[in-house]
Amino acid sequence: MVVHEEEPFNAEPPPGALADQLITPLEAFYSRNHGPVPHLDAATWRLVVDGLVTQRLQLSLQELRGRFPEREVVATLQCAGNRRAGLIEVRDIPGEAPWGPGAISTARWTGVSLADVLAEAGLRPEAAHIAFAAPDVSPLADPPQPYGASIPAAKATSGEVLLAWAMNGRLLPAVHGAPLRVVVAGWIGARSVKWLQRITAQAEPSGNYFQAVAYRLLPAWADPSQAGPEEGISLGPAALNCAILRPGEGARPAPGPAEVTGYAFAGDGRSVARVDLSIDGGRTWAQARLDKAAGPWAWQHWRTTVELPEGEVEITARAWDHTGAVQPESPASLWNPQGYANNSWARLHLTCSR
Amino acid sequence: MVVHEEEPFNAEPPPGALADQLITPLEAFYSRNHGPVPHLDAATWRLVVDGLVTQRLQLSLQELRGRFPEREVVATLQCAGNRRAGLIEVRDIPGEAPWGPGAISTARWTGVSLADVLAEAGLRPEAAHIAFAAPDVSPLADPPQPYGASIPAAKATSGEVLLAWAMNGRLLPAVHGAPLRVVVAGWIGARSVKWLQRITAQAEPSGNYFQAVAYRLLPAWADPSQAGPEEGISLGPAALNCAILRPGEGARPAPGPAEVTGYAFAGDGRSVARVDLSIDGGRTWAQARLDKAAGPWAWQHWRTTVELPEGEVEITARAWDHTGAVQPESPASLWNPQGYANNSWARLHLTCSR
Repeated sequence: MVVHEEEPFNAEPPPGALADQLITPLEAFYSRNHGPVPHLDAATWRLVVDGLVTQRLQLSLQELRGRFPEREVVATLQCAGNRRAGLIEVRDIPGEAPWGPGAISTARWTGVSLADVLAEAGLRPEAAHIAFAAPDVSPLADPPQPYGASIPAAKATSGEVLLAWAMNGRLLPAVHGAPLRVVVAGWIGARSVKWLQRITAQAEPSGNYFQAVAYRLLPAWADPSQAGPEEGISLGPAALNCAILRPGEGARPAPGPAEVTGYAFAGDGRSVARVDLSIDGGRTWAQARLDKAAGPWAWQHWRTTVELPEGEVEITARAWDHTGAVQPESPASLWNPQGYANNSWARLHLTCSR
Repeated sequence: MVVHEEEPFNAEPPPGALADQLITPLEAFYSRNHGPVPHLDAATWRLVVDGLVTQRLQLSLQELRGRFPEREVVATLQCAGNRRAGLIEVRDIPGEAPWGPGAISTARWTGVSLADVLAEAGLRPEAAHIAFAAPDVSPLADPPQPYGASIPAAKATSGEVLLAWAMNGRLLPAVHGAPLRVVVAGWIGARSVKWLQRITAQAEPSGNYFQAVAYRLLPAWADPSQAGPEEGISLGPAALNCAILRPGEGARPAPGPAEVTGYAFAGDGRSVARVDLSIDGGRTWAQARLDKAAGPWAWQHWRTTVELPEGEVEITARAWDHTGAVQPESPASLWNPQGYANNSWARLHLTCSR
């Protein structure tokens, strides 16, 4: 793993580790944390569901598993800061980790549907948002506070949002949210709250720092230290993105045919329709082969063979979604002061020599 | 109106005509036709609902209006060829109309929900697509055939898709589909079939030329005359877009403060979150003021005041959606042989002189 920070623990797999399998092995799954990893005792842990509901719930893990049908969803989680390194090349972003293209991973999640739990609690009509609270106190928040987030009730009741206790058939490790985490399929990872303790139905979005202040896309000219709550674009569904996984940055392949492979991912409400590859800086393109996705909420891998020339070469990849929209070209045009949502064309620089 | 063709009738309003009102007056609403406009007798007209349904329906307009609750939706329709002129500047697109930014309009539609009609007919589980058939024979199709299209059942049963008999409080004019048309909110206009006569539930998408061959985004290097059915990306939801409406192309305003206004539109599952304006080719940007939308399926107008310098100036506008995605920069990077889905940044060239 490429460790960006030890405390809080933030690490991503090297790109090549994501190239081999559609389901990311646990040991390669990226870790994004905002505070110390809590170690909760699953035996005494309880989940509270409260707020604008007709019936407050308090459930042990056993009660949760016994009372609702078990569901499985293959979902890709992607950090809003994925590929931030490409923005930092344009202009520095102090205090934020320089994530490469590995702040994204895919697991087969097992749990219950949040929709089923909310139906049991009975959402009142004015419950427009579902907030999630966890115990991990983040020193990065202003003021320091436990991590929290919310999603609109429409997404929360859509069926694909899970309360998961297992990934890839194993109980969640502590670093991934044991005993229970939210998995908001198709949305930025920040909404998939780990170490979940409380679900609150409310009229407004969460006032937690990580919903109201952070994870919002500010314009390039804004000063994030001066930004108040509710400024900028509150990030939710993930934007269309892609990355090159192999060859790796700095590789020195021989000239001649080489397989290039990567991933493409379209968030909630969109799907990947095509991936193009260029070895001449975008003047000409060839269409890559898209592998089948492991499910409607998962990324897709793509691959193609290119003929590498001798010397310096830039490989460019771009994805199109099923609306006919293509990723934007340049990281400069979407630079923002916290370095979120870099979904510009993927670029890889190689020197090919015999 | 700017008339691109008399037969079939294809015309768009000049940009300024779209700047004043969120609801487009009937006389300014763009017209996109593929054959002669049929003049159907509303008294003898019938709608048939058949295919994979438990009960075939045949309904007069009066029966349709009497049997289902009346619904009203403010929806923007946008032709897939909107802003094609910007692609033609990159490379010619023979045989396709050079639409400016006016192949888009917004109306208050009155009708019944397609979902209600399909519920009455009873969709069978294998009904994955809902096809629409009309009587207008298009000589442009290969072979010539009546116009048709289809949408996935999930969209057809979503509630916002209307079978409309009125727009802006008046019965549909013949050119806009009297007596009944489909309005697929958030999707390209081509799926909002006019002069609707038959709705068929089926396992596969429509095999009609305008679904299987046209309105598909081919890669830049494809030869559309050689393209078979099911090639390319079948266009559905509209991609994030924007345009400048005032000042108009070729205007010669005086240097000094000038109001710039336009529209932004995000298709199904997305909403417009921000619009930026630049008068220095995209080096620096200012945020425009976004007007309130007339509804969740409608465009938004935006406006801002810029300080125009003397001489040549290029005004650039770009929209961001609520996922933090921005429009792609250049029409060259999304050029395609039929000129669909140009959603690159809007650019307006002016000469400012006293």
